Amino acid sequence: MVRTVFYISDGTGITAETLGHTLLTQFPRVTFQTISLPFVNTPEKIDRVIQRINRTADREGLVPLVFSTLTSPALRMRLTMCRGSVFDFFETFTGPMEEVMGVTSSPVTGRSHGMGDPGDYSERIDAVHYTMQHDDGSAFSDYSKADIIITGVSRTGKTPTCLYLALQFGVQAANYPLTDEDFERGELPQILEPEKEKLFGLTVGAERLYQIRQERRANSVYASMQQVRKELRAAEDLFRRKKIPFLNITHMSVEEIAASVMQRADLKRKI
Amino acid sequence: MVRTVFYISDGTGITAETLGHTLLTQFPRVTFQTISLPFVNTPEKIDRVIQRINRTADREGLVPLVFSTLTSPALRMRLTMCRGSVFDFFETFTGPMEEVMGVTSSPVTGRSHGMGDPGDYSERIDAVHYTMQHDDGSAFSDYSKADIIITGVSRTGKTPTCLYLALQFGVQAANYPLTDEDFERGELPQILEPEKEKLFGLTVGAERLYQIRQERRANSVYASMQQVRKELRAAEDLFRRKKIPFLNITHMSVEEIAASVMQRADLKRKI
Repeated sequence: MVRTVFYISDGTGITAETLGHTLLTQFPRVTFQTISLPFVNTPEKIDRVIQRINRTADREGLVPLVFSTLTSPALRMRLTMCRGSVFDFFETFTGPMEEVMGVTSSPVTGRSHGMGDPGDYSERIDAVHYTMQHDDGSAFSDYSKADIIITGVSRTGKTPTCLYLALQFGVQAANYPLTDEDFERGELPQILEPEKEKLFGLTVGAERLYQIRQERRANSVYASMQQVRKELRAAEDLFRRKKIPFLNITHMSVEEIAASVMQRADLKRKI
Repeated sequence: MVRTVFYISDGTGITAETLGHTLLTQFPRVTFQTISLPFVNTPEKIDRVIQRINRTADREGLVPLVFSTLTSPALRMRLTMCRGSVFDFFETFTGPMEEVMGVTSSPVTGRSHGMGDPGDYSERIDAVHYTMQHDDGSAFSDYSKADIIITGVSRTGKTPTCLYLALQFGVQAANYPLTDEDFERGELPQILEPEKEKLFGLTVGAERLYQIRQERRANSVYASMQQVRKELRAAEDLFRRKKIPFLNITHMSVEEIAASVMQRADLKRKI
């Protein structure tokens, strides 16, 4: 059974997609086809959306699911005329919230992520640029400005985790890749010693890392099970000896890794 | 009036935060203090959360708002015992969805972002690495593998937009910074000619760019109003002459820019 789902929004649609997608995961036996329709902000655009929903209903003989984060009451009202089953995010929650707080709400579009204002924007852009300039463990890195330094062997998710921390939380996240050189010395590089408290390690199951590296450079020494095991063992040894907190990311998404790092390193979001 | 808001989740809490934050923006006259409590996945942890909510209610003499994306029905039930006003995203919508579709839901944690599986993970990581390697417009860039090439003058949001496209949508986004050299030639660099259809321009109001560049390098020629105006005019001229679609990002957040680019360039998300 395939069911069509529409995400309707007068902004980016990110909130509607987040809500809808989260709810759809609770129905693992249903296959969904999703259609995102952002920036629906005039009566004319709503009418075209309604026609599209109705054509889908006719063609499929099934009621489409419609997740809406329209903020304008007039557009919301109009959307209820479609032949889909509308789940209206604002309609559902703002009424009860008004009651609890004893104040009325005002429809506000496009502020959903609260990152539009110049202050937040600068924090975030600065964090992204810092993170990109401190991604390679180069000797010229200025770790004193880092909020956190993610470390681990090659292909353990350091870069995407750092970028996610920068983009979502405005955190200046540097990244130091551990190599055989570090393991032979058995010590952290000199440059990291004064910033030891900021280090956070990532590790991963050997099978998974083997698979990831094989996709990159099949049949290389780098991707061999022997090398993978050796590096992971040495990295975890170093984390323990140096009392660096670390996380095994084998079964985690980038979001989960970033959220866990924020929590375990007790970092404050800056945006 | 300051009101305390709790985001409770058995996963990362990102969905609870996104949804809650969107609702809070509809109450611009209320000041909120938000507390995020992720990974609440046992009865013991729920009980500590309840105690914390109740202490807040006592201290403030106001009912705290509690946004929950707990998936386990048992934990959800337990949370209703707190003295906050609980807005339960799953409870609210899964019942009506079951009715419409005639199927029952199964509680699933941590799949909210659907990026946990190896296929998605690889797409996303590959996109992030591609984007980072194609951020500087270097002559060695391989634009043939790009899904989109974002261009514009310095500090118009190209890098964060590309990274957001890569992280959120798995899109391979390259970035080509326009400089005086390009403007003097009045042409796109040779390397971009075969990929012209993939180009997408970003521009920004002169006042805003002036402000952003002054924060970087105050009193430099680079940050002068004259230089800013000259570059923006030349870039927009080039976009028009070469029929490159472009977007003015002055009042947009990174999410909005990325969503607009996806829509206007008709890009398909890969994750």
